Amino acid sequence: MEFRANVPTPCVALVMGDPAGIGPEITAKALLRLRARCQAGELRLVAVGAGTAFREASASLGAGEVPSDFLVENAERLKARPRAAFNLLDIDPGGASIPLGEVSAAAGDIAYRSTVEAVRLVERGIADAIVTAPLNKEALYLAGHRYAGYTDMLAQLTGSDQAVMMLSHDRLKVSHVTTHVALREVPALITPERLERVIRLTEQALVDFDIADPRIGVAALNPHAGEGRNFGDEDDDVVIPVIARLRGEGIDVEGPVPGDTVFVKALGGQYDAVVAMYHDQGHVPVKLLGFKLDPATGEWLDLSGVNITLGLPVIRTSVDHGTAFDIAGKGVAKEGSLLEAIDIALRLVNGRRSRSAALEDPTEANSRKMGGRR
Amino acid sequence: MEFRANVPTPCVALVMGDPAGIGPEITAKALLRLRARCQAGELRLVAVGAGTAFREASASLGAGEVPSDFLVENAERLKARPRAAFNLLDIDPGGASIPLGEVSAAAGDIAYRSTVEAVRLVERGIADAIVTAPLNKEALYLAGHRYAGYTDMLAQLTGSDQAVMMLSHDRLKVSHVTTHVALREVPALITPERLERVIRLTEQALVDFDIADPRIGVAALNPHAGEGRNFGDEDDDVVIPVIARLRGEGIDVEGPVPGDTVFVKALGGQYDAVVAMYHDQGHVPVKLLGFKLDPATGEWLDLSGVNITLGLPVIRTSVDHGTAFDIAGKGVAKEGSLLEAIDIALRLVNGRRSRSAALEDPTEANSRKMGGRR
Repeated sequence: MEFRANVPTPCVALVMGDPAGIGPEITAKALLRLRARCQAGELRLVAVGAGTAFREASASLGAGEVPSDFLVENAERLKARPRAAFNLLDIDPGGASIPLGEVSAAAGDIAYRSTVEAVRLVERGIADAIVTAPLNKEALYLAGHRYAGYTDMLAQLTGSDQAVMMLSHDRLKVSHVTTHVALREVPALITPERLERVIRLTEQALVDFDIADPRIGVAALNPHAGEGRNFGDEDDDVVIPVIARLRGEGIDVEGPVPGDTVFVKALGGQYDAVVAMYHDQGHVPVKLLGFKLDPATGEWLDLSGVNITLGLPVIRTSVDHGTAFDIAGKGVAKEGSLLEAIDIALRLVNGRRSRSAALEDPTEANSRKMGGRR
Repeated sequence: MEFRANVPTPCVALVMGDPAGIGPEITAKALLRLRARCQAGELRLVAVGAGTAFREASASLGAGEVPSDFLVENAERLKARPRAAFNLLDIDPGGASIPLGEVSAAAGDIAYRSTVEAVRLVERGIADAIVTAPLNKEALYLAGHRYAGYTDMLAQLTGSDQAVMMLSHDRLKVSHVTTHVALREVPALITPERLERVIRLTEQALVDFDIADPRIGVAALNPHAGEGRNFGDEDDDVVIPVIARLRGEGIDVEGPVPGDTVFVKALGGQYDAVVAMYHDQGHVPVKLLGFKLDPATGEWLDLSGVNITLGLPVIRTSVDHGTAFDIAGKGVAKEGSLLEAIDIALRLVNGRRSRSAALEDPTEANSRKMGGRR
């Protein structure tokens, strides 16, 4: 980005999530891993959450004392030190220690308030993206915050309607038309409006990923795409007309492609992303690629994969795993997915900045186009 | 199997499928690859189909002349030569050449009659298992045979009720509670009776695979297994009680396990097989593991994976791909999946023989048990 020296360093607000889970630990690990890149001016990080939990996690890792100027207590003070590479915005200064591995209203409330604070950082132009470590939905409920999770919370806090979940693995990106609903409710939710919105948001995200001419494969709802209405009519009645209309606009979208080959085709380079119709259709392939279990111990070895929320006014990515209460505080939690989520948020921030710049300067749009696919 | 010298060599009836597709070609290739093992007495093969199509496929491969004693015209003559390692049962002696790559009633009729003949071979004790190369359903219909495919045909020809589809890849076995039905019909088809039957047949198949104490994971119907009835009730109302009952009988079955982790856990060694609730839930992971597309050419590089039909009185396996009319006769079709299907049929024949023997001889049952997992 040397050609735009006036562009500020991208800043990520990192919500630590439920302090009783692995959030503070993986945040501390991620900060250690990113310290050099932060100091080199590649990114700024503001971890948002309970200072007490962070300090405990950090100390248990032997990561040494948290530098005193690292902790700030409110966004005003944060704004006053724009050059600091990383910061912890303590939303509960002097707060009590939270027992690890336990569902509690106190922990749920911290997760909620951290999210609110992160949204404010974006609204005030301090942060460019939000990255979230896992929360516990039950704790959130106990604290009186009745949201289905971060995505729901962020949609409401930012006044957005339908948010769309995209899962991103190194080799496969999948966005979902429906997610957390009973399977029996899925067919009726596959409306032309919803499908069209998901395809458009997916295309936009791929452009933000700096993919010049994105190609999208849409998974069929029914097996074999219904095989000529033998196994259901939705693929013919809903999916085919929407795709025809969007192709008419120049969007490179294909389908309905039978679910059991569309992901193989994407891995084989035919699509830059797949639109899945329901939770398991999209989650099974991404997690199969990104998750690994140790056969000897039964423990997770790898939990790669990032959750990206499309359709919000703010760029938001998230780890693709849970709070892991069973291993909280044991020092064994892996920060890989969180680092991946931060990296993807940065790519999207930079991509969106280039896109806005290109809109103002057609010369640059051409030079981007020439760059081809990444 | 040296300890049972009196056991006859297992014999596989190989149905060549639609002669306009790649069936005859992959059959000829498979026979060449298996010749040495057949001659060594490890297996017998009877390819069943149109002699003309087989000879043409064989000649186009430069595989040389088909030995004259290789072709037999009826099962009587076949029975008279029990020592021949491989045979072609020509169900259309002197028949006309079938145009490649075209859907036709003539081709559909050959596929049908080959299947009928293969079932007869099993019923007469000549063959121990049926392995099928792909057919074209439209051709079958044109010929007046209105079956949904081999599985349906074999079920009716053998007077079986519900057959169950298991997909088997090297690293993952998945059986299905439902397959070729619209997604909207799936929830109502997940009945306790059907689920119980699929779990029992899956366990039996794993025992036939010589897995001593099979462990089965049952995928949830709904995302997150319904997350405490938030996203559907079927996992609580149907799946949990069936699993509890079968566990009470000593079957090692777990679930409902959320669909997006159950396959990862199976790959990580926690289950020997997964029971999937519907087509794409089970097919997506197996095909993702077994299928590969060449990014440069867009052509399939690998199509491994075998389809096993459970619940029939005969062992039956099948390739996991279609007739590939577009490449028929070009010499590029891959025989890998067919060889895999034959190998798995042999494993199941031998496994089932050991199981029957063990029932008669408790000593051997113990020695099998001690052998542990494979």
